[in-house]
Amino acid sequence: MALIVQKFGGTSVGSVERIEQVAEKVKAFRAAGHDIVVVVSAMSGETNRLIGLAKQIMPQPEPRELDMIVSTGEQVTIGLLSMALLKRGVPAVSFTGNQVRILTDSSHTKARILQIDEERIRDELQAGRVVVVAGFQGVDEKGNITTLGRGGSDTTGVALAAALKADECQIYTDVDGVYTTDPRVVPRARRLEKITFEEMLEMASLGSKVLQIRAVEFAGKYNVPLRVLHSFQEGPGTLITIDEEESMEQPIISGIAFNRDEAKLTIRGVPDTPGVAFKILGPVSAANIEVDMIVQNVSHDNTTDFTFTVNNNDYEKALGVLRQTAESIGAREVGGTTDIAKVSIVGVGMRSHAGVASRMFEALAKENINIQMISTSEIKVSVVIEEKYLELAVRALHSAFELDAPARQGE
Amino acid sequence: MALIVQKFGGTSVGSVERIEQVAEKVKAFRAAGHDIVVVVSAMSGETNRLIGLAKQIMPQPEPRELDMIVSTGEQVTIGLLSMALLKRGVPAVSFTGNQVRILTDSSHTKARILQIDEERIRDELQAGRVVVVAGFQGVDEKGNITTLGRGGSDTTGVALAAALKADECQIYTDVDGVYTTDPRVVPRARRLEKITFEEMLEMASLGSKVLQIRAVEFAGKYNVPLRVLHSFQEGPGTLITIDEEESMEQPIISGIAFNRDEAKLTIRGVPDTPGVAFKILGPVSAANIEVDMIVQNVSHDNTTDFTFTVNNNDYEKALGVLRQTAESIGAREVGGTTDIAKVSIVGVGMRSHAGVASRMFEALAKENINIQMISTSEIKVSVVIEEKYLELAVRALHSAFELDAPARQGE
Repeated sequence: MALIVQKFGGTSVGSVERIEQVAEKVKAFRAAGHDIVVVVSAMSGETNRLIGLAKQIMPQPEPRELDMIVSTGEQVTIGLLSMALLKRGVPAVSFTGNQVRILTDSSHTKARILQIDEERIRDELQAGRVVVVAGFQGVDEKGNITTLGRGGSDTTGVALAAALKADECQIYTDVDGVYTTDPRVVPRARRLEKITFEEMLEMASLGSKVLQIRAVEFAGKYNVPLRVLHSFQEGPGTLITIDEEESMEQPIISGIAFNRDEAKLTIRGVPDTPGVAFKILGPVSAANIEVDMIVQNVSHDNTTDFTFTVNNNDYEKALGVLRQTAESIGAREVGGTTDIAKVSIVGVGMRSHAGVASRMFEALAKENINIQMISTSEIKVSVVIEEKYLELAVRALHSAFELDAPARQGE
Repeated sequence: MALIVQKFGGTSVGSVERIEQVAEKVKAFRAAGHDIVVVVSAMSGETNRLIGLAKQIMPQPEPRELDMIVSTGEQVTIGLLSMALLKRGVPAVSFTGNQVRILTDSSHTKARILQIDEERIRDELQAGRVVVVAGFQGVDEKGNITTLGRGGSDTTGVALAAALKADECQIYTDVDGVYTTDPRVVPRARRLEKITFEEMLEMASLGSKVLQIRAVEFAGKYNVPLRVLHSFQEGPGTLITIDEEESMEQPIISGIAFNRDEAKLTIRGVPDTPGVAFKILGPVSAANIEVDMIVQNVSHDNTTDFTFTVNNNDYEKALGVLRQTAESIGAREVGGTTDIAKVSIVGVGMRSHAGVASRMFEALAKENINIQMISTSEIKVSVVIEEKYLELAVRALHSAFELDAPARQGE
């Protein structure tokens, strides 16, 4: 018998019929002898409807009142799911974030969880009830209702699992697990049985939208085993857990992530003096533009070239900032393009295996794909390439690192 | 400078436009120097939408979870109205029933208010804010969300006014006050400047739907001056207050109330033994039928006739019960009709004026209207007449008691 926290997102509870299906699933887990805490989001579309109402009155809604309004979405779902369970003879009770209570700071619309008082949930579990908790919301010290920001329900699930020392936190989604790469690009992509928190973080930050980064960080920090599963299909999903050294057959690379949403900017002929990086990136960050990869070439003739990437949406703005900077610091020229893509290999295995990067570069070279930028971390190597080569690069790397699923009969 | 509680119902906040209008009204009151607490209902239609969702899952929704769901309606409105005030530069803050807190018993869907902790509201008022409170909802000792039942927002308004010792509780509706009788029946009906709680209770229980009976009782008990006003028209409305003996020109009768929804049942030739009333009405009340007027004629030949009225909807059921009773107690016959109406004159003035009832009977006799039943209380005389004479009776009484508005120029 285990204690399991199950989180169902907006699509999984998007209609009365789907709520009934979720209730069936919860009932089955309970029948298997488990204690269950369910975390749910608002029915899909509901949060946007509520925000829409608020914006009709205030185009920039006041955050405290917006939280007051938006938090009602989850409150409706917990009531409906509890009823669907009660109807099936499953004892159930719903709780808002305030009732649990999930204490947060007072940063309305993007609050952070400070503490969870799990006593009342424990009492209800001991009384044999399924506890249904509203995701995405909490309460600050003064009793104001707060929300955790987009994807906050995942965080609620993980935080509850941590507080209750649950055996597993199951995140139900519209995919049946985490894949070695996007199956739309590589048909032979495989579902991973397991992946580490660190790898999942890299995959998520590189555009794999299965889980919210914040929830993965939280799970890693408190060592909560996370499982990604399909809401309405059977299957083991993918378990996200700590890096178990004892694992016999750890693959070197777990997955290939990629991102088409970046743009590259370059400033050339920058006088190479101390503090030049700050002089260039300070104004960019002051303009609220987030910078991803940064590469500075070795200096020659006392000047250096400096390249970085930003989100496509910020490209024009960043270019403007950079042109001003170039003038003020006496750089030679400024250029850039949105016509790039970033491809990354991710895996904790590369820590103990030399030559992973060169194997990557070799695979790309074989396909005549030119690498424009390189950036490495302990468990990741990212390259920027011309966007049109993206699919080719991902498939080549997927094969080179032996991630392809076995060919099926007849293939 | 006064402390005023203002309550706006579902129709008054039924759209974003109307919420903006309410904000304008509140702003004007605040500009006049008043401290304002606003109580709002859910936007019209919203409560029914939420109940509909719940019933899709559970035709008889579990009460605790239904309260969880339904209470979100008011929560959305308080957020929206607060934003509409903030947008106008009026400092405002919203509170749920739990946040106030409005402590109730645990009778979900029909909870009763036990206590209001008004400290937080006072703090916010002192800080210069308009406080917007969700009507209809509260919280029990265990922190479960409760609702007060239909019309509960009126009760919230009155209870808050009592707790805060407000100078006035204003109930905004779709009529501009309480009238001497229904203006659709008597075009010269007058809006009353003032009416006592007792009179209002009699008027309300007789079918005048302006206010919830419970709210009037509550206001009377705690002596909270209540004012009924039109949401979107200017005017002083009607003040409902205690019976001020010093009032110089107290009219004898304040209004004529009537009710078409009653049916009359008679059991004749009942052996007149002690306990006969209980033998007849016991089974009726056991069948969950509410009885209104009861008349027992003086006995002759050791038998008596017994007549009572019930709601039209219960007529057939009551007739069945009565037939069984007649058989078991040896009564002669049972009869009844739905073809009746009840007309009442209401006024605290009749306490100190003799002959009010006979003046009523005289006015009806002049119009050849036969009286079938009579029932009196301290401040009310009710008669049952044939339904077709209803309008004629009301107009005759309205004139006889000098309630008609002065004839307008040209009339």
